[in-house]
Amino acid sequence: MFRKDLKVLDCTIRDGGLINNYQFSEDFVKAVYASLCESGVDVIELGKKLMESDEYPRTKYGPWNFCDEDVLKRVVESYKGSYHPEIAVMFDIGRIDLNGLANKKDSPVDMIRTACYVPQIDKALDTVKRAKDKGYKTTLNIMAVSAAIESELNEALQDVSKTPEVDYLYLVDTYGAFYSEQITYYLNLYKKYVPVEKLGFHGHNNIQLAYANTQQCIIEGVNLLDATINGMGRGAGNCPLELLLGFLRNPKFDVKPIYKVIQKQFAPLRKEMEWGYNDIYGISGLLNQHPRDAIKWRADKGKKDNCYDFYETCTRQDLGAGE
Amino acid sequence: MFRKDLKVLDCTIRDGGLINNYQFSEDFVKAVYASLCESGVDVIELGKKLMESDEYPRTKYGPWNFCDEDVLKRVVESYKGSYHPEIAVMFDIGRIDLNGLANKKDSPVDMIRTACYVPQIDKALDTVKRAKDKGYKTTLNIMAVSAAIESELNEALQDVSKTPEVDYLYLVDTYGAFYSEQITYYLNLYKKYVPVEKLGFHGHNNIQLAYANTQQCIIEGVNLLDATINGMGRGAGNCPLELLLGFLRNPKFDVKPIYKVIQKQFAPLRKEMEWGYNDIYGISGLLNQHPRDAIKWRADKGKKDNCYDFYETCTRQDLGAGE
Repeated sequence: MFRKDLKVLDCTIRDGGLINNYQFSEDFVKAVYASLCESGVDVIELGKKLMESDEYPRTKYGPWNFCDEDVLKRVVESYKGSYHPEIAVMFDIGRIDLNGLANKKDSPVDMIRTACYVPQIDKALDTVKRAKDKGYKTTLNIMAVSAAIESELNEALQDVSKTPEVDYLYLVDTYGAFYSEQITYYLNLYKKYVPVEKLGFHGHNNIQLAYANTQQCIIEGVNLLDATINGMGRGAGNCPLELLLGFLRNPKFDVKPIYKVIQKQFAPLRKEMEWGYNDIYGISGLLNQHPRDAIKWRADKGKKDNCYDFYETCTRQDLGAGE
Repeated sequence: MFRKDLKVLDCTIRDGGLINNYQFSEDFVKAVYASLCESGVDVIELGKKLMESDEYPRTKYGPWNFCDEDVLKRVVESYKGSYHPEIAVMFDIGRIDLNGLANKKDSPVDMIRTACYVPQIDKALDTVKRAKDKGYKTTLNIMAVSAAIESELNEALQDVSKTPEVDYLYLVDTYGAFYSEQITYYLNLYKKYVPVEKLGFHGHNNIQLAYANTQQCIIEGVNLLDATINGMGRGAGNCPLELLLGFLRNPKFDVKPIYKVIQKQFAPLRKEMEWGYNDIYGISGLLNQHPRDAIKWRADKGKKDNCYDFYETCTRQDLGAGE
């Protein structure tokens, strides 16, 4: 499956950081960065660019939650090869300091990705515009679409269509609930408002479909695809980068550096951090629920494998209640 | 996704038995059987029906490798509820005793599935005919199609089309190498020779696509779908039954007994037996290789997580050799 305009965005550090409060060591991030440079990936998202706050103190959250420019520069400069991917960071609406944002020409960052829920679309578009004004490439990532009211989603997409500052619009499967025909359905909706060349996709693997859904997006013409090394990411994780590169067979990509960094860095890390499919996330995805309850369940050693109890908890109905 | 004619075949014991030489305890198989009865699954494959031989001695292989009728009867009679699925067993060409096969009316078995590679098609069709003569439903499962020469596959399919004794013809993704468009491609080939109502699918999860490919088969009209509880099966395993039942949303199925048996029986078993996706099987699937090398690699504790080394081993070329 070779298509020149197809771009792969690795978000290992950003989505993986949701598991460990962005406490990756700088050496680990440098190793990830080097492997991605060598593999020829197009864009690397190195974390979130949030303000320090009572909610996000630096005592609890690591450097990749703030993405200070000096830290990013050290990572970029640590790799001595000739090819460097573009650098992306993620904004969360309401947790950012736009006034403190440097101009693109003074920053190692190339792309700012703004994540929002449907009701936050106006704030998000304002953020996108201001990032664009400072010279950055922009993406808008509308989260949790599988749980959005479709008429509201349509209104949001109409707003997006009137905002040329959005370089890419993402379909995001936050709950890991979609399968191929639903991917096609939502992409057709998005295509009514935004040309297909400007669409991106970010999947989650709750029901083992992150990779399959990413392939479906490719079939439907989407050109910007998120993936993470070893599928590392919150909960059930994401589309594994190594499978995606293996599938694309594009000579500009090399999967070997990815397997190398998995063997050296990720295999040991799996003993400390958990990510990837299991029964609990499967239930969460099948029921189209936010992964937070599943994540909490998995954190409880006494019941983490009790999928029947989790299913019962998720589907139990209080028969005494009204409708 | 509700379609009345859709049937689900559980092959947990048969494909899972490839991991442990069919050494499941009778109590475990009875628990699996009861959960499948309660879930409303259409067919259960309880093992292989092979002859005892030097290759398959009873000292090494457990009862589900031979499926003696008294053993199967004990399993069936252990469940006291009203609904009982059909019972299937698998034949391997050249390792069976057709003369010793009872007539259907004297056996708890309803369906005989004959597995073969493309070059064995004539022997397999002879076996199917003889099973049909004794009164059984039959399936023909052509293995390793992703590695078959297509002209030979076409000839085999032509032979199948002339054999009305084949009730179902399976597309089998032995290497776990297919993605959705390839599923469609091969199904279109099969449909030239056999009506779509007579097609079945058996997937493997090497690149996390067993469930997605099963969905693709449903979309393409296939009516007989293999799955296993918790995805248990050789190597990367199979399409997880619980995800498939959750997807189908057919009121005749109930997924809860499946989650119950996973929690009680499979979660503890995962500490003793390994199945499911990992990097090594991913490489094996991406490279369209027989899983035997990957299984061997995973069995070596010193290198089981060394995916880079495995990738190098699989792709290394002897540059000194001719073409």
